[in-house]
Amino acid sequence: MMLMDRLYNEAVKKGPICVGLDTTMKFLPKYLLDKDWSDGEKITEFNKKIIDVTADLAAAYKVQIACYESLGLDGLKAYRDTVKYARSKNIVVIGDVKRGDIASTGDQYAKGHFTGDFEVDIMTVNAYMGEDAVSPYYKYIKENDKGIFILQRTSNPSAVDLQNLIVGDETVYEVMGDKIKKWGSAFIGENGFSAIGSVVGLTRPDEFEAIRERCPQTFFLVPGYGAQGGTGEDIAKILKKSRCAIVNSSRGLITGHQKAGCEDEGFANYVRKATLAMQEDILKWL
Amino acid sequence: MMLMDRLYNEAVKKGPICVGLDTTMKFLPKYLLDKDWSDGEKITEFNKKIIDVTADLAAAYKVQIACYESLGLDGLKAYRDTVKYARSKNIVVIGDVKRGDIASTGDQYAKGHFTGDFEVDIMTVNAYMGEDAVSPYYKYIKENDKGIFILQRTSNPSAVDLQNLIVGDETVYEVMGDKIKKWGSAFIGENGFSAIGSVVGLTRPDEFEAIRERCPQTFFLVPGYGAQGGTGEDIAKILKKSRCAIVNSSRGLITGHQKAGCEDEGFANYVRKATLAMQEDILKWL
Repeated sequence: MMLMDRLYNEAVKKGPICVGLDTTMKFLPKYLLDKDWSDGEKITEFNKKIIDVTADLAAAYKVQIACYESLGLDGLKAYRDTVKYARSKNIVVIGDVKRGDIASTGDQYAKGHFTGDFEVDIMTVNAYMGEDAVSPYYKYIKENDKGIFILQRTSNPSAVDLQNLIVGDETVYEVMGDKIKKWGSAFIGENGFSAIGSVVGLTRPDEFEAIRERCPQTFFLVPGYGAQGGTGEDIAKILKKSRCAIVNSSRGLITGHQKAGCEDEGFANYVRKATLAMQEDILKWL
Repeated sequence: MMLMDRLYNEAVKKGPICVGLDTTMKFLPKYLLDKDWSDGEKITEFNKKIIDVTADLAAAYKVQIACYESLGLDGLKAYRDTVKYARSKNIVVIGDVKRGDIASTGDQYAKGHFTGDFEVDIMTVNAYMGEDAVSPYYKYIKENDKGIFILQRTSNPSAVDLQNLIVGDETVYEVMGDKIKKWGSAFIGENGFSAIGSVVGLTRPDEFEAIRERCPQTFFLVPGYGAQGGTGEDIAKILKKSRCAIVNSSRGLITGHQKAGCEDEGFANYVRKATLAMQEDILKWL
């Protein structure tokens, strides 16, 4: 079974929930901060506890590598240990790395994130450099059952600076969507979706609906839920027509304990509660 | 003195030479491959020897992090040791990381590449996500004398997929250039260049000349020399009007010994020869 089929099936079974492990030190409960461990070790323990209590709810984990790179080698050890632990639970892991470079360099990124220490199932890719920045991953999609999500219409306010420019009678993000569709057409799985998916934010649901109609074989990674303003009703309108997406929440879930004032070993129960609330918020509309 | 002033001064003094340390195992001479060391240790030794023999010729080193990420933690140790060693020689180091993400994540990348294990002087940035992907670096430019190079018109064949799309009567890369100019206008140094520079490939010199005229305060990092087809005469035409750029060569320099069939400790002399040849090829036209 192709990777995106696996993700689709999980999203239908559990709900389209992606737990974002954008873990920084300020999210850790006091009992972990007090340990005589490196920052990376504390972050790894935090993530493992969260994975333990959300494995039955999460269709995927998205691990934002920037949070780990910011701590240097110690942080990247935590990245390695986190993705290994999540994959050991047989759950799809997305390395949110947004890499993008010319073909010879892209080969190196593919090797780095689809094999070895940092191996994930799917990585996010920035295709400002065009197909050269994407083609190095084809081999891994075919031979190693991997997938990628390419940035199309991102959820941040200044996404409009480039992505909403008008080319002829379309936007840059529509042109990018057509390219994602074209590049992905060789990798369609049994559920009708390509192993080359797209990142589209939930912050503008009307744009998202138009994007989906234009690219019915594209599977979407959707940030922007919760902290950034997207709601369960917004995404459910789209999912009712096609179960074409997973929805990521990071801060909204992994700070559940902080909102409850919990700083001890019980913190993960609050993260589970927040994940259940997200699941309910989406599923009640479907 | 601001970072881009320091780079400008070095480029005028030594020539606009950027030595690209895109080091992969296949470039190493046999005597290093035969050592009982980790791959990362072998790469570090290779890079150090090259830095030793080119420090008087290089205005900057550009270290392509993908080559190191591909080897996991061991590779990233080599990245850390390489950038530390080059910076210890008081030469500007560019981390070619092409990171680009929303503001909160950009903050993490800025911390990761402007402090700690992976600290460099300049990092390359992908701004497909707009100013949010750039603004996290402003603080480091102001307070820590750092710089960035934003991808504008890259040297790879498929750059045209997005960058040459027509928006009104301009290309996407021209729009990007205008944004780089605007974002950089707050950081102009004593030589008239901004700490926010631009990456423009040498593979289309006519486009480059037009870009330079449009953005006279932008300093450029120019890949595409040598292996990718750009010549000294191409870049000299531009540099005669303004010393606005450094030119990177990677494979063309760090495989100098392979072309000569040298596999022993003397390999670095051939890298020096290749670097001298590049310097001469550019300076003879100036």
